[in-house]
Amino acid sequence: MANKRLVIALGGNALGNTAEEQLELVHNTAAPIVDLIEEGYDVIVTHGNGPQVGMIKVATDNSATKVGGTPSIPFPECGAMSQGYIGYHLQQAIQRELAKRGINKPCASVITQTVVSADDPAFQDPTKPVGAFFTEEEAKKLMEETGNKYVEDAGRGWRWVVASPQPIRIAELDVINALVEQGMTVISTGGGGIPVIEEGNGYKGVPAVIDKDRSAALLAGEAKADMLVILTAVDRVCINFNKPDQQELASMTIAEAEQYMAEGQFAKGSMLPKVEACLNYVKANPEGKALITSLERAKDALDGKTGTVITA
Amino acid sequence: MANKRLVIALGGNALGNTAEEQLELVHNTAAPIVDLIEEGYDVIVTHGNGPQVGMIKVATDNSATKVGGTPSIPFPECGAMSQGYIGYHLQQAIQRELAKRGINKPCASVITQTVVSADDPAFQDPTKPVGAFFTEEEAKKLMEETGNKYVEDAGRGWRWVVASPQPIRIAELDVINALVEQGMTVISTGGGGIPVIEEGNGYKGVPAVIDKDRSAALLAGEAKADMLVILTAVDRVCINFNKPDQQELASMTIAEAEQYMAEGQFAKGSMLPKVEACLNYVKANPEGKALITSLERAKDALDGKTGTVITA
Repeated sequence: MANKRLVIALGGNALGNTAEEQLELVHNTAAPIVDLIEEGYDVIVTHGNGPQVGMIKVATDNSATKVGGTPSIPFPECGAMSQGYIGYHLQQAIQRELAKRGINKPCASVITQTVVSADDPAFQDPTKPVGAFFTEEEAKKLMEETGNKYVEDAGRGWRWVVASPQPIRIAELDVINALVEQGMTVISTGGGGIPVIEEGNGYKGVPAVIDKDRSAALLAGEAKADMLVILTAVDRVCINFNKPDQQELASMTIAEAEQYMAEGQFAKGSMLPKVEACLNYVKANPEGKALITSLERAKDALDGKTGTVITA
Repeated sequence: MANKRLVIALGGNALGNTAEEQLELVHNTAAPIVDLIEEGYDVIVTHGNGPQVGMIKVATDNSATKVGGTPSIPFPECGAMSQGYIGYHLQQAIQRELAKRGINKPCASVITQTVVSADDPAFQDPTKPVGAFFTEEEAKKLMEETGNKYVEDAGRGWRWVVASPQPIRIAELDVINALVEQGMTVISTGGGGIPVIEEGNGYKGVPAVIDKDRSAALLAGEAKADMLVILTAVDRVCINFNKPDQQELASMTIAEAEQYMAEGQFAKGSMLPKVEACLNYVKANPEGKALITSLERAKDALDGKTGTVITA
């Protein structure tokens, strides 16, 4: 019997703000992932890249505009760099943990493009701040020069905002599948994937941020995973979160989740997009299961001891 | 019968100095590569990253030290970023060219680590300048603070020098092989691979530059390629280069190549390391062939119309 296949979406707490911090954190991240590989699951790891792609964009822009001698790097290329940077650390940490346990399975990172529609309405209303902070004056000059949108961000200055379109296809799906079918652990679709649109015979990068959990949900469906596992800071999804009558959920159906969403139970930009990603997945793949839990308790959750399972 | 397998090492002229330039150049690079795929070869593409990893190191250092707010990025991590940055463009260009010709074969970039020995004598005598230029005063301060070696570089200032050790193993070989066996085009071992040493159960990045042609030669042997193809600015290797009696070579045996090397026929830092890489490959794989030619004439060279073939 083929191994069960998991698509795991790592949360931001799996990585760090500097290379040294990240190298240490991925070490902690690798052990619970390798627990699952040791249990016999085939694993595809996806991860966020918000702080990392931001750092790369800010650093290359700082150098280009304030020091000189190096070019500004477009946002999709910064995303590609972040996949190399994070993928390298993750694969090294997972390889080390596999070797430590005597498991002879390769692990590799695949540079992944995620296709979005050029007609996605999100492009009409960019909302995701990325890169450096500017003064109002600088931002207005940049808006005139580039036609890009800049907004005031939480009193800290002005920032470029890009669209957050829906992922519609993982360009390197065949590559990911070929590796997973050989029992290899694949790191892919980092930061939700490098956002590209179709143009002529191929793809073209666009400045955008694709929600990593949405991309993981899409990938889980396309890669015919048995389960989508979204890892976050809590062991279980709660209703009445942080209130006296807080209640942990062991499971939710689509109907129950939609009821909780209608009640405003899940925080925007936090638990809500994770639950939505799970719903996208189980609606498109009714035989699949989605699981939200913490990295530390991932194995327990797959054994049914914790976590919130979402099913059709 | 299985397709013949090629490892292609792209020269520096295949890429550019900015993202926009690179995106345009890889378009030209893709067509002759896809010519070979169309002819029925399975292709593993490797590439250099000198200007790109330098740009990333300088930009992130500029931002960290002269502007602030972003961290300095260690050299191996800059290499990983460059693999993401270059691999993304190359795979996109090759995918587009394949689609244009109706060839339904995936292409992907794999983040690749190349294992070197911690005892390689090159670590005792670093010689490869990388990253930014400093004044003598700045360099001496950095040498004291970091223990790293800095040297005066061609009158342009002082630069950090790192070792150029011999590649001894491609860490992600199984991953590369698994994809090539499915007929996929793999981009890997960019910039010679991210240099790592063995430490405990795993790998650890080290600041070093591995000659990309040497890594390609190693990969060609490890991946059981039928041919190593090193692409450069000329169609054929010459003796008496740029002299009235210049002579193009259609082929060389190991013995002939060593005779020419003893005569000083091949320029250091230019044709010499390419010929040396070919010799490494055919010595270790006597049934294999190595070919040096230009990107533009790669197909003609594989058809025997140009290029220099090196055999045992």
